[in-house]
Amino acid sequence: MKLTILGSSSALPTSERYPSAHVLNAHERFYLIDCGEGTQMQLRKNHIRFSRINHIFISHLHGDHIFGLYGLLSTFSLMGRKSPLSLYAPSNYDLMLISHLSDFDIHLSYEINFVPLAGKDPVEILNDKYLTVTSFPLKHRVPSFGFLFREKNHDRNIIKEAITTYNIPGVRLPAIKKGEDFITASGTVIKNEEITIPPPVPLSYAYCSDTKYFKRLASFVKDVSLLYHEATFDQSKQDLAAVTGHSTTLDAARTAVEAGAGKLIIGHFSARYKDVGILLKEARSVFPNTLPAEDGMTYNIADISNG
Amino acid sequence: MKLTILGSSSALPTSERYPSAHVLNAHERFYLIDCGEGTQMQLRKNHIRFSRINHIFISHLHGDHIFGLYGLLSTFSLMGRKSPLSLYAPSNYDLMLISHLSDFDIHLSYEINFVPLAGKDPVEILNDKYLTVTSFPLKHRVPSFGFLFREKNHDRNIIKEAITTYNIPGVRLPAIKKGEDFITASGTVIKNEEITIPPPVPLSYAYCSDTKYFKRLASFVKDVSLLYHEATFDQSKQDLAAVTGHSTTLDAARTAVEAGAGKLIIGHFSARYKDVGILLKEARSVFPNTLPAEDGMTYNIADISNG
Repeated sequence: MKLTILGSSSALPTSERYPSAHVLNAHERFYLIDCGEGTQMQLRKNHIRFSRINHIFISHLHGDHIFGLYGLLSTFSLMGRKSPLSLYAPSNYDLMLISHLSDFDIHLSYEINFVPLAGKDPVEILNDKYLTVTSFPLKHRVPSFGFLFREKNHDRNIIKEAITTYNIPGVRLPAIKKGEDFITASGTVIKNEEITIPPPVPLSYAYCSDTKYFKRLASFVKDVSLLYHEATFDQSKQDLAAVTGHSTTLDAARTAVEAGAGKLIIGHFSARYKDVGILLKEARSVFPNTLPAEDGMTYNIADISNG
Repeated sequence: MKLTILGSSSALPTSERYPSAHVLNAHERFYLIDCGEGTQMQLRKNHIRFSRINHIFISHLHGDHIFGLYGLLSTFSLMGRKSPLSLYAPSNYDLMLISHLSDFDIHLSYEINFVPLAGKDPVEILNDKYLTVTSFPLKHRVPSFGFLFREKNHDRNIIKEAITTYNIPGVRLPAIKKGEDFITASGTVIKNEEITIPPPVPLSYAYCSDTKYFKRLASFVKDVSLLYHEATFDQSKQDLAAVTGHSTTLDAARTAVEAGAGKLIIGHFSARYKDVGILLKEARSVFPNTLPAEDGMTYNIADISNG
């Protein structure tokens, strides 16, 4: 799994930072998370093929997370898209979407499967070949949701020499990959551990933006490999964070500690920070494995979660 | 007057071209014409101060001309704007605007003066210290309007030596600049032409996008110094242009000829043209003084209208 950050600003974009948008590449399927203004241009700049995007997740209906959506939906149509698009967004968005498309004379060439986000508990919203995706509530000024992407367990890897040593027929291999032992023609049981090696640990990625700190959040993203958590403000601005429903650096780091995250990326930086060094330093004082979000950066989750 | 082009693509932006947005700088007042996705980032890149923008003109409600508007309106608020903003857009937009702002939880810190565009004839929609702005109907798939910006007549320039020669008191200078003769203490009439030189010819700029060709358009922009006219397609695609309500290169050039324009800029290019050379060549075959729109380019209207 690889994460590409297309936008890392908060509400006010800067010349270096576009508004929020992340792309998770899991086995060459691209999952778009939030869609701030300019996302389609950022996708092009980062050479991400539009046809590979079949799922868009919108955390909440503030402009810096959604103003790129209509442009992207229109562009899909202009490119002749036929395959349906799944759109996950707060439950009150479905009627708005229909009315906005009509207001702007947009006629889509494909279907949208709208998946409403609601409720106070985590909900599995997607379960495909490689991943499950769970949404969970955040605490912000409007209904907001985070997303947890979890790779499914990989199959065990069969040791090639074992196939010839024990003369294992091809038809038995799928079951052995799933963990079954092998019984030879003479009835000897060969333990699975002798003929396979364990698969890589499934990776996971969680997106938490926008939100203020709340204790239960860590339980929603327990043991995640890579946690993205907004850190709009430095710690001295905790009053402003509270009023605006945002997090400080230490809020983000604290959630990472409590969740036992492998790595933390902070982002959604207020435009007041020309240099985010102070934010990084504060977050690292609590959670050392912290990186700053940067537009156009791609993070290999397998690599950085070992950090 | 200077024109800066922020976006020159048609509906599908490319890595080199953003959707439509122009900024006209007239005496350091900035007039924003259309507001495609990414306009606020393009304004920043081009170092155009947001606080200098008090008038936004929206030609029509297709996304590539308006999807940057909500982001920009929000940004004005976040920057603490207090001064009212005049917004000129098709008449059905006022209620939409109110409902969209509410949908996206946008609370503006300033007032919007909405000026509805409608009708089949040119209408003067703005008359300020330096300019008049006239809107006029275009022919596209939805109600669409062009804009003509005309500098007011400048005052005549007084010849400095004449002031001493004829001992002209300061209190008389404003009237002389307006064209009055000067009468000396002894009653001699000094003709205005003897003591002043003519002012520069007032410049004008017209924006015509999106539209198909129609004969009356040229009369709306008669004698304009600089005409911007969309040329989405090359001439071989005139059928496609007709179906989509757009212009070809020759349509744009023909209108420039019929209007007696000083110079033509073509833009709103279909994403199919990686190189717009063919478009330029076609337009120049009919109207030689043609330039291609390029994102980030600034055109000094006084210079290029002499071309």
